[in-house]
Amino acid sequence: MSESSLDGSRRGFLRAMTAAAGALLAPSASVALTPPSTPKLPSGVNPKNFIIHGVNPLTIETRRSLMGMSAITPEARFFVRNNLPLPSPQIVERPDTWVLEVKGVKQPTAISVAELKGLGLDAVGAVIQCTGNGRAFFEHEPAGSKWGVGAAGCAIWTGVRLKTLFDHFGGVDAGMNFLTATGGEIIPEGMEHNDLVVERSIPIKKALDDTILAWEMNGAPIPLLHGGPLRLIVPGYFGCNNIKYVKTLTCAPQESEAKIQKTGYRLRPIGAPPGPDYPSMWRMPVKSWVNGPGADNTPALAGEVTFYGVALSGERGVKKVEVSLDMGKTWQDATLEDLDLGPNAWRVFSYTVNLPKGPHTIVSRATDTQGDIQPKERVENERGYAHNGWLDAALTVNLLGEPPEEKVAATDQHMVKEESTPPERESVSLSAEGQAGKQVYLESQPSCGACHTLKDAGSEGLIGPNLNELKPNAESVKNAVTNGVGAMPAYNDLMTKEQINSLATYIEEATK
Amino acid sequence: MSESSLDGSRRGFLRAMTAAAGALLAPSASVALTPPSTPKLPSGVNPKNFIIHGVNPLTIETRRSLMGMSAITPEARFFVRNNLPLPSPQIVERPDTWVLEVKGVKQPTAISVAELKGLGLDAVGAVIQCTGNGRAFFEHEPAGSKWGVGAAGCAIWTGVRLKTLFDHFGGVDAGMNFLTATGGEIIPEGMEHNDLVVERSIPIKKALDDTILAWEMNGAPIPLLHGGPLRLIVPGYFGCNNIKYVKTLTCAPQESEAKIQKTGYRLRPIGAPPGPDYPSMWRMPVKSWVNGPGADNTPALAGEVTFYGVALSGERGVKKVEVSLDMGKTWQDATLEDLDLGPNAWRVFSYTVNLPKGPHTIVSRATDTQGDIQPKERVENERGYAHNGWLDAALTVNLLGEPPEEKVAATDQHMVKEESTPPERESVSLSAEGQAGKQVYLESQPSCGACHTLKDAGSEGLIGPNLNELKPNAESVKNAVTNGVGAMPAYNDLMTKEQINSLATYIEEATK
Repeated sequence: MSESSLDGSRRGFLRAMTAAAGALLAPSASVALTPPSTPKLPSGVNPKNFIIHGVNPLTIETRRSLMGMSAITPEARFFVRNNLPLPSPQIVERPDTWVLEVKGVKQPTAISVAELKGLGLDAVGAVIQCTGNGRAFFEHEPAGSKWGVGAAGCAIWTGVRLKTLFDHFGGVDAGMNFLTATGGEIIPEGMEHNDLVVERSIPIKKALDDTILAWEMNGAPIPLLHGGPLRLIVPGYFGCNNIKYVKTLTCAPQESEAKIQKTGYRLRPIGAPPGPDYPSMWRMPVKSWVNGPGADNTPALAGEVTFYGVALSGERGVKKVEVSLDMGKTWQDATLEDLDLGPNAWRVFSYTVNLPKGPHTIVSRATDTQGDIQPKERVENERGYAHNGWLDAALTVNLLGEPPEEKVAATDQHMVKEESTPPERESVSLSAEGQAGKQVYLESQPSCGACHTLKDAGSEGLIGPNLNELKPNAESVKNAVTNGVGAMPAYNDLMTKEQINSLATYIEEATK
Repeated sequence: MSESSLDGSRRGFLRAMTAAAGALLAPSASVALTPPSTPKLPSGVNPKNFIIHGVNPLTIETRRSLMGMSAITPEARFFVRNNLPLPSPQIVERPDTWVLEVKGVKQPTAISVAELKGLGLDAVGAVIQCTGNGRAFFEHEPAGSKWGVGAAGCAIWTGVRLKTLFDHFGGVDAGMNFLTATGGEIIPEGMEHNDLVVERSIPIKKALDDTILAWEMNGAPIPLLHGGPLRLIVPGYFGCNNIKYVKTLTCAPQESEAKIQKTGYRLRPIGAPPGPDYPSMWRMPVKSWVNGPGADNTPALAGEVTFYGVALSGERGVKKVEVSLDMGKTWQDATLEDLDLGPNAWRVFSYTVNLPKGPHTIVSRATDTQGDIQPKERVENERGYAHNGWLDAALTVNLLGEPPEEKVAATDQHMVKEESTPPERESVSLSAEGQAGKQVYLESQPSCGACHTLKDAGSEGLIGPNLNELKPNAESVKNAVTNGVGAMPAYNDLMTKEQINSLATYIEEATK
């Protein structure tokens, strides 16, 4: 679409679409309370595929035994990590009407996905990996979800290159050093925008080199959980940069001032306070791990065994993977799968060996195309980011001398019952009032969990204090909710006094 | 697993597994009649993704507008064509226990999928395309499903190479020129095995070069509809060779004597009787087509338009795709997507052009890496196989001058209601007895549709006569069902006289 083709009717269309999108995103002003009090997984999420770290915001990890032996991860097994509650499912019902604003180009514009699809077509095989993948291995117990290896997946993403889009609107303005992408999540009214907004900046060169705006994931429209209708795919960069429901692209001289960019997602020493001068979590370093057989105590037979896993290095790909069955004393070359989805995808490797029954531990070590070798030890850092030490990711499997005829039936992944299995958490005993308060915690709009971490409620919000650490008493909760405190607004117009009292009781009981 | 590792317990396991598999596959001897009479799609099939050609055997075509812009087709949108009714879903509940027999090697064996997984790991990007894809374009109306372009999909298939398997058991016996694979479908008792069995032969060189036994499709276990637990993937060969639920592999001097191989799936002139000397439908020739935008009357906007489609040539891949907006008078080079899943996958191409509103027709023409150019005209043949003429696959799209604000909501694929939409067919008026007979037709075990084509019942069996063509009267149906006729066994022990009478009434009424 050239600028001149923006005739009256099309401009009207864009205005209407922008207004409609705004209406969808407007937060509800009232507190909705409905009976059920257990956090629900979104429809379409099969709990047997995931470790549930939290439900709101959604934080689910692919089980190691289900990561597969192929170069791609299907949507149904792909991990999800959201920083804020999911936007309305309505935004993916008519994906072509989603409107993107583009700023910092010669002709700033608003453009619908339908029009974006007219500009060109490009695809990339790319790993999306949470910056905190592997956090569970850090011994200082960093704040945040305790991911094992499964906060990562690889998909084919199809859309249009940013360069094609920017060139279409006259090119990037002079002096712009960064591209900032802003997500379309709901920001609750009364909250400080920059504290909450999901907005990341990347170097403008990266944006122009190979970054795409994608509307397809593995051959189908991107679903809401994975950022549809439109997701920024920054090939080879950590997950946090791959902004979901992208609403605005801004080319600018400086990085965003949003908390998530300015001080968040940066590699700082343990104990150091956050700051803007630590390295931003951009390119993913060389990494590999073994996924099976035998992960999650699934049965595996002695005899000929083919171990398999994945290896990646952002923007580079890998040239070699070695495995060791003696914790790194000796290494053998693994076989890299011929199928190669490019330098930002992961590569499947395998290693076949004859082994007797009993326990065996296997580790893998990748070397990327620039010669970087995956280290033995993790790089210690405050938030547990960028884990890639091979030692921690060791897989121990107990090979069976004969097939576990009954045990197969009991433990085979496919025999797991379809019912939703509740996320594991420590049991907390609640009074009747505490139970009513839990309902308030979960069902208010926005939910308390949008900002707070509270294990019993399955919430992992990072905006406000972690309630499990703060352990507030009921009085201080009542005061904060009624009058506001710090960045937190007052909720006394949105909740009844009874609701606030029961909420306070719940939080005290749940954090004892 | 070496031969010597087949200790007593493992042999016992294999025997037990073989017996269990046999029990699953044993046909029911009784005729089961249950109330609902409309053929049901298997669970997991979303009718909005498909054109339903038949339900039993399952015959569903991907809608052209949903074929996507990516190099792979997700499972939920992948066409299905079965020659016989689906096996029991139980066979994919414990996929590792599925047992494969291997014959014609130095050490003939039976091996479970669990053990196959120990032998090695390989993957291939491969198009599966029904031999009859494009049959709807043939003007002589060949027998069989009238596929448009959508009986094709591309996936990443992961498993083990046949060469690895055969080498493990001493290699292929001398003098074996063909590999025959046999599917695990239920063969109804009393039927001639060779008339029904789904069994295809390929040259032994092809089997050893790159054929694999796959257990994963796009990163997850192969579902039943696509041939799980174990499917033969013959890269670059037509779909019929990619045997589902593969139970037996036989290396032999000659091709199989089964009808599907001996005279079926061969390219013969229109009007010629079937015979074993016509070319077998093996390698897929060079082919391409445009999938959008605007297929299936989905809305597409004038202005900048990016057309997209897929191109393939079995074992070769493509080196060039051209498109034409004037039915082949002039051609422009399309852009081939960088992402390349190998010579047996398809390659996405695109072409961006500024077009005014109104109707436009686009065609595409691929050239493969050996210089074969996709022809303008189809190769006429009796059964409508191997369609690849570019003319027939032309896509006409009516570009809109402005977004169809209401129309988007009404026609957008994502707004289609979730309810199952029944397959379109001409209405037939049935008497009460005819309706009861329809139930018998659909619900008997095996169902009549396993062998017969009958439009009203949605069945497309090819074993026995096409009832729409035969138009039998009630008396001749009664006689055939009661006493058998030709290859058809007598059913008088399996159905009551009332059931046979109502069935006869139904078939007469439904084919008038």
